Amino acid sequence: MTSEGKDYGKAAVARHRETRGKISIAPKMKVETLDDLSIAYTPGVATVCMTIARDASESFQLTNRANTIAVITDGSAVLGLGNIGAEAAMPVMEGKSVLFKALAGIDAIPLCLANQDKDSIIQTVRNLAPSFGGINLEDIAAPGCFEIEDALQDLGIPVFHDDQHGTAIAVLAGVINSLLVTGRKIEDTKFVFAGAGAGAIGSTRLLLEYGATNITLVDSVGIISKDRLNLTPIKTAMLETTNPENLHGGMADALRGADVFIGLAAANTVTPAMVSSMAKDPIVFAMANPIPEIWPEDARAAGAAVVGTGRSDFPNQINNSLVFPGVFRGALDSRSTKITTKMKLAAAQALAALVKEPTKENVIPWSLDLEVAKAVAKAVVEAA
Amino acid sequence: MTSEGKDYGKAAVARHRETRGKISIAPKMKVETLDDLSIAYTPGVATVCMTIARDASESFQLTNRANTIAVITDGSAVLGLGNIGAEAAMPVMEGKSVLFKALAGIDAIPLCLANQDKDSIIQTVRNLAPSFGGINLEDIAAPGCFEIEDALQDLGIPVFHDDQHGTAIAVLAGVINSLLVTGRKIEDTKFVFAGAGAGAIGSTRLLLEYGATNITLVDSVGIISKDRLNLTPIKTAMLETTNPENLHGGMADALRGADVFIGLAAANTVTPAMVSSMAKDPIVFAMANPIPEIWPEDARAAGAAVVGTGRSDFPNQINNSLVFPGVFRGALDSRSTKITTKMKLAAAQALAALVKEPTKENVIPWSLDLEVAKAVAKAVVEAA
Repeated sequence: MTSEGKDYGKAAVARHRETRGKISIAPKMKVETLDDLSIAYTPGVATVCMTIARDASESFQLTNRANTIAVITDGSAVLGLGNIGAEAAMPVMEGKSVLFKALAGIDAIPLCLANQDKDSIIQTVRNLAPSFGGINLEDIAAPGCFEIEDALQDLGIPVFHDDQHGTAIAVLAGVINSLLVTGRKIEDTKFVFAGAGAGAIGSTRLLLEYGATNITLVDSVGIISKDRLNLTPIKTAMLETTNPENLHGGMADALRGADVFIGLAAANTVTPAMVSSMAKDPIVFAMANPIPEIWPEDARAAGAAVVGTGRSDFPNQINNSLVFPGVFRGALDSRSTKITTKMKLAAAQALAALVKEPTKENVIPWSLDLEVAKAVAKAVVEAA
Repeated sequence: MTSEGKDYGKAAVARHRETRGKISIAPKMKVETLDDLSIAYTPGVATVCMTIARDASESFQLTNRANTIAVITDGSAVLGLGNIGAEAAMPVMEGKSVLFKALAGIDAIPLCLANQDKDSIIQTVRNLAPSFGGINLEDIAAPGCFEIEDALQDLGIPVFHDDQHGTAIAVLAGVINSLLVTGRKIEDTKFVFAGAGAGAIGSTRLLLEYGATNITLVDSVGIISKDRLNLTPIKTAMLETTNPENLHGGMADALRGADVFIGLAAANTVTPAMVSSMAKDPIVFAMANPIPEIWPEDARAAGAAVVGTGRSDFPNQINNSLVFPGVFRGALDSRSTKITTKMKLAAAQALAALVKEPTKENVIPWSLDLEVAKAVAKAVVEAA
């Protein structure tokens, strides 16, 4: 199936070259006559400016701010491609902008930053804040992403690192329905993550908030356990709430007897034998992009009951495109200054509830369903 | 006529409140089907990213970069309104974005920065550069604007402070035709500027490049002359090439016998008596926005032969909206890394030449004429 990805790749490059990218600016006012110009620009605009100068909150009424967010990356952790830098990250950020508009009517400005130093990123985002109603941090590598997001929570507009929380909300929604389909309870379910980056840590934290008790993280070195040397501070901190059985070893050791595998790491790192060693009717979300940890047909052949990926060309796409449009729509509409845990849990439950009768092939809504963002936004507004 | 400005102001506030600002994002690709999504986003987009990762210049072919500029301000010198800050500056920046699109097809992203420290602005612009094909610095106060622009000339994309150079090019174009109409030669013409900020200094420098020999700057304290104490470094530097007669005093002293007044300062600072004291058939460009240094009918009554303002509701609008769309169109189309003096002179001459038969009431093209940006862009490309 690798070739399928390649074919989309060729078509994607050809299409992007033809259109020169994916977004443009559309004016909401015409400037065809002298009157138009005098109202949209000088001299009339001066009064609009002074109205905001007297009350900065008017910027949400008199400019596009209330509907505008920035999608900001430093290109340090793009898709499953790694640190490819600012220019190379832009096609993903433009893609997010297209999805924000198509799914939630939000105007998202993609900004790819040249400097990957976290203090520089924080300063730049602070500088940009007055122009935006919210900030979607995107594809910024761990552990810097945690510090950057934490440092920006006082901006007065929501700052949301999608790789952590968008992923977490989509994963939790998929988990809720997968547990239902396979007859499990969250508190008795044993979770194993491939990866200990932004997505895995964000998802772990939200699953714990929802009631999970047994989660083990496996990074490229092996199971994150108390005997591991040289763990980063965030991984050490995660040990307080994860790996309750104090497992050791690699992925094969972690997966033996586990109920749920959630892959947010690297292509082809899970074998059919590992899936076969899991508990009966296991749940496998192999979400590495563009090539999953194990291809869906291989996982199913090895006994997986529910299989999801991050890709749009397989069933059960556990992708944050189900989440970020609705979460930001709700946050903007409620003029929230933060996106709280309560709002995230509400979003995940609303997302899961959109699947009226979950089955193994259908634990999560289809990502282009226009009802998804509306339902998520409604839940976020109610929780705000 | 002040009330006229007020009426536009009320209408402008009402209109902006109705539309919530002036710009939005328009996708260039649809995401309605699974195939759409697989090409615009994951998995196909990964190949687009990697194509740019291998050759960063591909960002000009595979994203909207080649047609995207940032309009960046710190809100420190907005129109004639002064330091009104980031949020209050946005209506002007959105207005510029609308004009960029309507007049030159350029996608301009308005970014209003929270921090007015020049090092912070420089760092932020550096950080943002990979996302853009050019940077339009806007409404940043002197003298910081000069240092900021100079520091950013190594970015590999054009960085153009419109208040200096857009103004300068429009002024030079208006001057070229006004001299023709009133039978003057540039080298014999005595110019007086109200203001010694970005626009006045940029215009002075370009007029000198074009052949002017006698220019005097007047700031809010008086004529900039060798005996002035505590001049800023840039004003001191300007004395090397200005005020050749070593004039002293205020605006009334400067204007006595002068040929051309160019106002880039404050409302109502020139009296009819001052205009009457100028040389025969004087040229008066009273460009303070939204209220000019002297209203056009008062200037004409006092003997002015040619009268221009910065406003769109009077004849002879000497406004940089005649300039910035075409200059950036030309710079983007020629993939220039800088906008050189040669390109600026070519733009001014092309702008002047668009008026086939200049008259006192018509020294500059109408700012909404769609041919203007095309002609300016063509001249810029040829000079590049």
